[in-house]
Amino acid sequence: MDREGQELFKAALGIVHEFLATSQDRQNKVVDFKQPAELLALMDLSLRQEGATNAEVLELCTKALHYSVHTAHPRMFNTLFSGIDMVGLSGTLMTSAANTSVYTYEMAPVFNLMEKEVLQTMRELIGWSAGSGIFSPGGSVSNMYGLMAARYRRFPDSKTKGCAHLPQLKIFTSCQAHYSVDKVAILMGLGTDNVVKVKCDHMYWAQQVRLCWQHLIPLDKMADICQAHNVWLHVDGSYGGSCLMSKTHRHLCKGIEKADSVAWNPHKGLHVPFQCSAFLTRHEDILRSMLSLRASYLFQKDKLLYDVSLDTGDMSLQCGRVNDAFKIWLMWKKNGLAWAGREIDRQLGLANYLRDRIRERDGFELVVQDQQYTNVCFWYTPPCLRGVAESDDRKQRLNKVAPKLKAGMVLAGSMMICYQPLGDLPNFMRMVTVSTSATEDDMEFILNELERIGACIQV
Amino acid sequence: MDREGQELFKAALGIVHEFLATSQDRQNKVVDFKQPAELLALMDLSLRQEGATNAEVLELCTKALHYSVHTAHPRMFNTLFSGIDMVGLSGTLMTSAANTSVYTYEMAPVFNLMEKEVLQTMRELIGWSAGSGIFSPGGSVSNMYGLMAARYRRFPDSKTKGCAHLPQLKIFTSCQAHYSVDKVAILMGLGTDNVVKVKCDHMYWAQQVRLCWQHLIPLDKMADICQAHNVWLHVDGSYGGSCLMSKTHRHLCKGIEKADSVAWNPHKGLHVPFQCSAFLTRHEDILRSMLSLRASYLFQKDKLLYDVSLDTGDMSLQCGRVNDAFKIWLMWKKNGLAWAGREIDRQLGLANYLRDRIRERDGFELVVQDQQYTNVCFWYTPPCLRGVAESDDRKQRLNKVAPKLKAGMVLAGSMMICYQPLGDLPNFMRMVTVSTSATEDDMEFILNELERIGACIQV
Ligand SMILES: Cc1ncc(COP(=O)(O)O)c(C=O)c1O
Ligand SMILES: Cc1ncc(COP(=O)(O)O)c(C=O)c1O
Repeated sequence: MDREGQELFKAALGIVHEFLATSQDRQNKVVDFKQPAELLALMDLSLRQEGATNAEVLELCTKALHYSVHTAHPRMFNTLFSGIDMVGLSGTLMTSAANTSVYTYEMAPVFNLMEKEVLQTMRELIGWSAGSGIFSPGGSVSNMYGLMAARYRRFPDSKTKGCAHLPQLKIFTSCQAHYSVDKVAILMGLGTDNVVKVKCDHMYWAQQVRLCWQHLIPLDKMADICQAHNVWLHVDGSYGGSCLMSKTHRHLCKGIEKADSVAWNPHKGLHVPFQCSAFLTRHEDILRSMLSLRASYLFQKDKLLYDVSLDTGDMSLQCGRVNDAFKIWLMWKKNGLAWAGREIDRQLGLANYLRDRIRERDGFELVVQDQQYTNVCFWYTPPCLRGVAESDDRKQRLNKVAPKLKAGMVLAGSMMICYQPLGDLPNFMRMVTVSTSATEDDMEFILNELERIGACIQV
Repeated sequence: MDREGQELFKAALGIVHEFLATSQDRQNKVVDFKQPAELLALMDLSLRQEGATNAEVLELCTKALHYSVHTAHPRMFNTLFSGIDMVGLSGTLMTSAANTSVYTYEMAPVFNLMEKEVLQTMRELIGWSAGSGIFSPGGSVSNMYGLMAARYRRFPDSKTKGCAHLPQLKIFTSCQAHYSVDKVAILMGLGTDNVVKVKCDHMYWAQQVRLCWQHLIPLDKMADICQAHNVWLHVDGSYGGSCLMSKTHRHLCKGIEKADSVAWNPHKGLHVPFQCSAFLTRHEDILRSMLSLRASYLFQKDKLLYDVSLDTGDMSLQCGRVNDAFKIWLMWKKNGLAWAGREIDRQLGLANYLRDRIRERDGFELVVQDQQYTNVCFWYTPPCLRGVAESDDRKQRLNKVAPKLKAGMVLAGSMMICYQPLGDLPNFMRMVTVSTSATEDDMEFILNELERIGACIQV
C-alpha cells in the first residue's frame, strides 16, 4: 500500500475525529452558508492532469466538512434524517474497508446472511411469516419494486412481451403521495396521467403516515378494498415504516400486514447512515421471478460450493449492490430492537411537545391540529401580518414569509427547517423531530429563533 | 454523543486498521470460506429485543471482516473491481461522517459542486463540451437512464401519457450486452422480447469494450448508423469507460463522442470505493425535462438563497441520493487525472503479460487470442482431458472443469477467479487484471495454482 495514501488516511481520520467531536455543539453553526461562487473562491475544486500534495487535499477536506451542512447538529431539522449514530458510523467504516458487492454469497458470505436476517426481522415486524425483500438505494427505488411487482403479478408475460398489448394500467395513490410514484410511472411507461391521485379527504388511501397531513389511515380498510378488487397494495413506509418498531405506536400501521409490499427506509428515523432502504413483499418468489435472467457469468448454477438460491443478484435491478445491510444489522444487534421502538417514541414525544408549545404561542399556528407522526407543520405570522384579515392578499404575503425565515436561519447558521406549500395552503414550516440529539429546549429555541428572524420581516 | 457508541467506534477503527494492515498479504487467504450453516454456528447473527455488549459486537465485527472476501487481496480477481485505494477510502470516511443527501445545493453545497466538477471532467474526457449527468447507484441504473432518455427524446409525451399509444419500441444491443439491458427492458415495460440482440460476428454493436469477447468496436461507424436512422446511441462503458483516461488506449473508444449517452463506473477499474457510477449525456436538458416534477417540499422555486438550477434532485429517479462524488473527486484531485490513465495502462500491460504466458504454456488455451481490455479468458485442460479429441463429450467434460477449479481455489483460499460459459463455449476462466496490487508474479502464481488444483481433477 502506498505510503502517501496511508498518511492521507491517517490524517483524514484526524479531521473526521475533530469534526465528530464538535458536530453536536450548539455553539457551532448548522451550516456556514456560502454561495457557489464564494465556495469556488475558497476551495480549488478543479481537477487537473497532475495531482496535489497531501497537505493541499487535507486542507480541502477540512473545508469540505466545514462548509457542508452539519447533519449531526441538534438543530438540523431540514430532512427526514438528522443526527448521528456512532454504531451506525462504525458499520459504515467496516463496510467501506471490506468494499464488496453483495450480489452473491460467494462475494459477500457474511453480509448476505446479515441482509437476510435484517429483512426477515423487518418482515416479522410487518406481520409476515414469509416473503422476500431486498435492500435498495432508497425509498424511490423501493417504491419502484413495489409498482413493478404489482404489474408483473397481474401480467407476468409483460416480462418478455412488454406492455404494448395490455390495457392502460393505472396507479391509485394519495394526492399527498411522495413524488417517486410519479417518477416510477414515467419510468415504467405508464405516464403521470395514469397515476390517479385520490383526494385525501374523499377517500382512504394507501400511503403510510406521510409528510405532514393529518390522516387517520385506515390501511386496514384499504387493504380489504384492494383484496376485493384484486389490486396490489404497496405501502410507502419510507418514512413511516419505522413506526412499526414502537409497541406504543405501531397501531398507526394497522393493516400493513395485509399489504402486498412495503417500502421502508431505516436511514430516516432510525438513524442508519445513508443509504438504507428496504423493499419487502409477502410474495416469496415474485422478485426473483420478475427479474431473474440467470446471467451466466455471475450466477452460475453449476457452482459446487453452496446453494445458489442464496444469491440475491437475480432479484435486483442492480448488478453490483453496495452493502447497506451491515450497518443496520450492527445497530440492531448492539442496541436491540426495543431501542428502536423507544427512539421512535422519543421522537413522537418531541413532536407532541412542539405542537403543544405552538398551540399556546402567539403568532404561531398549526397547519394540522394533531399531527400523527414526527412532523409538525405550522405557520409563523410576522408582526406585519398580525391582525390583517384573511384575504387572498394576506395569503400571498404569508406565502413569502417562510422563504424569508429560511434564508434568515441559514444565513445565521442557527438552525435548518424545511418549508413548503401544500395545495392551496401558503408556505409553512415543516419541522421534523427525528434528530438524535434535539431536546425540548431545542423546540423552545426554534420558536424563539423564528420570532427573532421574523420580527423585522416585511412582506 | 453516547459514550458506549464512541467507544465502539474507537474499537471498530482499531479492527479496521488491523484488517487493512494485512489486507494485501499474500500469506493470508483471499477468503476463509464457510458454508452458511457454519457461519451461523460461528456467529450469532440473530436480532433480539435486547442489545449486546460492545465486546460481543466487536467480536462479531472482527469475524465479519475475517469471513468476508478480502477484496484488497492481490489475488482477488473475481470481479471487475479489486484492490484498495487509501485515498478513496479516506473519501468514504468523510462522506460517512458528513452523512448527507446530495439532492440539493442547500443540503450539500460542497458535494454538489464537486459532483458537477467530476461530471464535467468525465464529459470532457468523452469529448463533449456540454451536456449533463448524474451519479447513480451503479451501471445498471446508469443504463436505465440512457434507455429512458432514448424513449423520452423520441416520445416526450410518454412522460405524461405513458406508452400504451406508442408503437412497439425496441432496444438494439449486442448479444454480449450486460444483462441490465434486459432488466431495464422489463422495468420500462418493453419486455425482453423487444431487446434485439445483434450477433457480434454479424454486425457492429453499440456496447463498450465488454466482458471477454474480442471486438474491434467500430463505435464510430455505429454512431453514424444511429444518427442516420435517428436512433439514440447509449454506450455502456460501465466497465470500459475508464479506458478514456488513458492517452495510449482511449482510441479503443473512438466514436464515443458521437453517442447520446454513456454509462461509466469508476468503482471498477479506477478503484473508487463502492458505489460510484455516472450517467452522462450530451443532451443538456433531457434528464431534467424527463424526470422533473418540481416537488414543492424539496425543490422550492422561491428559495431566496441560491440559484435552484443547482439542485439535482429533479434530474434523478432517486430522492435521497448518497454522496458518491466526493471520493472520486478526492482521488482525482490527489492523484491527478494522468494517474488514472497510467493505472489503466498498467492493468492492460498485466493482461497482455498474462495472455503471453498462457500462449506459451501447455494445458492452457485462450478463448480470445488478443483480448482487447483487462480481461483474459482461457481454458485450463486438466491432464485427464489432454489428448482427448474434440467432441461433444469432451466439451461437456471441459465444461465441468472450471467449477471444480473454482471450488478448489476458494476452499484453499489461494485466489478467486470467475468462470462462465458463453453461448456454445464451455465454461472458461475469466481473469480480470484490475487489482491495485497484483503483479506479474501473481500472474505466474495463477497459472501454477490452476495446475496444482487441476492436476487431480477428474471429469
Ligand atoms: C413517504 C416517502 N416516500 C419515498 C421517499 C423517497 O425515499 P428516498 O429519498 O430514499 O428515495 C421519501 C423521502 O423522503 C418519503 O418520505
Ligand atoms: C458492461 C457492464 N455494464 C453494466 C454493468 C452493471 O454495473 P453495476 O454492477 O454497477 O450495476 C456491468 C457490471 O459488471 C458491466 O460490466
